[in-house]
Amino acid sequence: DEITPEQQFEIGKQKALVCVTCHGVDGISATETYPNLQGQKQQYLIAALKAYKQNQRIDGLAILMQGYAKHLSDQDMRDLAYYFSHVKTENHDQ
Amino acid sequence: DEITPEQQFEIGKQKALVCVTCHGVDGISATETYPNLQGQKQQYLIAALKAYKQNQRIDGLAILMQGYAKHLSDQDMRDLAYYFSHVKTENHDQ
Repeated sequence: DEITPEQQFEIGKQKALVCVTCHGVDGISATETYPNLQGQKQQYLIAALKAYKQNQRIDGLAILMQGYAKHLSDQDMRDLAYYFSHVKTENHDQ
Repeated sequence: DEITPEQQFEIGKQKALVCVTCHGVDGISATETYPNLQGQKQQYLIAALKAYKQNQRIDGLAILMQGYAKHLSDQDMRDLAYYFSHVKTENHDQ
């Protein structure tokens, strides 16, 4: 059976449990030096995760991401990218 | 005299003329592999530009950015980051 967009979103959300501690459940990070991921281009997110996994981003902020990305499969990256490219802020009074 | 937010925005917009060809006038890029910059965290944008300038992002997509960032001063980076962190899409029917 094909996966529905809603199911795909939930799969990504589950895998994103670690990510959201810094980048926010809705992809809006609480910290100025961490990027927002909400609505980001899916292919860019995958490319960025691959770059971290391959240690091709080596600035001070990249160390943590290298550690997380190391354990991600291509499928994990697609699922995470799907989630953050589609997630929206539910409560709009911020 | 102090610079108003509107003046600061315009300064950044002028400096962003090269950036917007790929990242969009409103910070929404036309290409899947180029990141949106609209509403991105200002400090993250500065950190990313510095990383490119210092060749600390070396994946395939980073080559162009290295070339552009090389010529940016700290003030340029602040101005560009101000622009993209504040820019909005004017026409909402997309």
